[in-house]
Amino acid sequence: MKTSVPYELFYWPAIQGRGEPVRLALEEAGAPYVDVARRPEAEGGGIPAIMKGLHAPGIAPFAPPFLRSGDLVIAHVANILAYLAPRHALVPEDEASRLHANQLQLTVTDLFAEVHDTHHPIASGLYYEDQKPEARRRTEHFVRERIPKYLGYFERALGANDGPHLFGEDVSYVDLSFFQVVAGLRYAFPRATARVLANTPKLAALAARIESRPRIAAYLASPRRMAFNEDGVFRRYPELDVT
Amino acid sequence: MKTSVPYELFYWPAIQGRGEPVRLALEEAGAPYVDVARRPEAEGGGIPAIMKGLHAPGIAPFAPPFLRSGDLVIAHVANILAYLAPRHALVPEDEASRLHANQLQLTVTDLFAEVHDTHHPIASGLYYEDQKPEARRRTEHFVRERIPKYLGYFERALGANDGPHLFGEDVSYVDLSFFQVVAGLRYAFPRATARVLANTPKLAALAARIESRPRIAAYLASPRRMAFNEDGVFRRYPELDVT
Repeated sequence: MKTSVPYELFYWPAIQGRGEPVRLALEEAGAPYVDVARRPEAEGGGIPAIMKGLHAPGIAPFAPPFLRSGDLVIAHVANILAYLAPRHALVPEDEASRLHANQLQLTVTDLFAEVHDTHHPIASGLYYEDQKPEARRRTEHFVRERIPKYLGYFERALGANDGPHLFGEDVSYVDLSFFQVVAGLRYAFPRATARVLANTPKLAALAARIESRPRIAAYLASPRRMAFNEDGVFRRYPELDVT
Repeated sequence: MKTSVPYELFYWPAIQGRGEPVRLALEEAGAPYVDVARRPEAEGGGIPAIMKGLHAPGIAPFAPPFLRSGDLVIAHVANILAYLAPRHALVPEDEASRLHANQLQLTVTDLFAEVHDTHHPIASGLYYEDQKPEARRRTEHFVRERIPKYLGYFERALGANDGPHLFGEDVSYVDLSFFQVVAGLRYAFPRATARVLANTPKLAALAARIESRPRIAAYLASPRRMAFNEDGVFRRYPELDVT
């Protein structure tokens, strides 16, 4: 079931960040959507559009990203995706698959939070430059202990299915998020990630497969896909590319 | 719909931790459940039961807690609760309420992760004693910036409903988790939490109301409720009770 009224996605306009798993799902679905804050302020976009949404009456979002779908305003990446996916055939219909998809997506959420904290181990409200020694120390543990643990887990999850994706024969929103994890880790920690991916061939192959899907390839080549940069979750600081 | 076969909860046997929001929901529901790892190893319990579950075939959990319900094994607190709640009338039936409940629960998840990182800002694999200066620095930001932000947000969410709870007239699983947040923060950061709660009267009143519900009160007075301790998420270290 597709909606004719475009979805409205609210997320920081200059980064992939935690919004990107939602953008990838909308793009793969071919769903009409507006990336609201990337529009000019004069047309109701920009950061003020996000701020307005955060102060809406009722149960408002705690933070972006959030999605408006008709009268609904929904926050949290995994929650947004669990809402969108059944409407766009991005998750199997059976309960077990949906629960496992959500479980895996929440693990992706945890990984994103840990990646963020590699460069912000003390406080989000401080600059990276104000927490560099702690960032280095946290990153060493993240790279050496957590990247292998997470990617090894995703590899095992992929091994639970005979097909090319996580569930059955069709792509799911979690497959798309796995691609984003691989792309982000490759950007932020290229040396360690290459080494780990050599031991997780199913995950590496999945990422390549997702990247070449027609709608995803078109998205990645479009101006809608922003480049990774040092304001996002995945940041390339040479001093943090530890091995 | 209640099941006659007991649910099996798998979580570390000596802490409330991230398992506690699930325990509270099961207790309020009056649902039959086994807290598997609290059983003796000789009876299939203990840590080995958790380890076995983590290495199960198929899409296994990344970490505890996880719940076995018949043939299903489900991980991640918010995922478990979104599964249990409709079966035990712990969330309204309409889609908007369920999405908002999940959204709030995921914000509770984020808060738990931030609380954990106050005492483990560098790595989970290190002892607190190996990261004390960083813990102090992170805690100062958490206490001064994040506790007011989170509790203020929960207060506004409670204000969206005229009734005594988050949704309509009945208690939801998120109300129970809000109680746990208040209890945990009071334990870990008593001075700062008291000050913030003075400005979030709806949340303070909700916590008191949940605590006195018959099934919750019985649970809290039982040996099934473990005390907070310094192995859990919420830890009382005098040097971290900053103001």
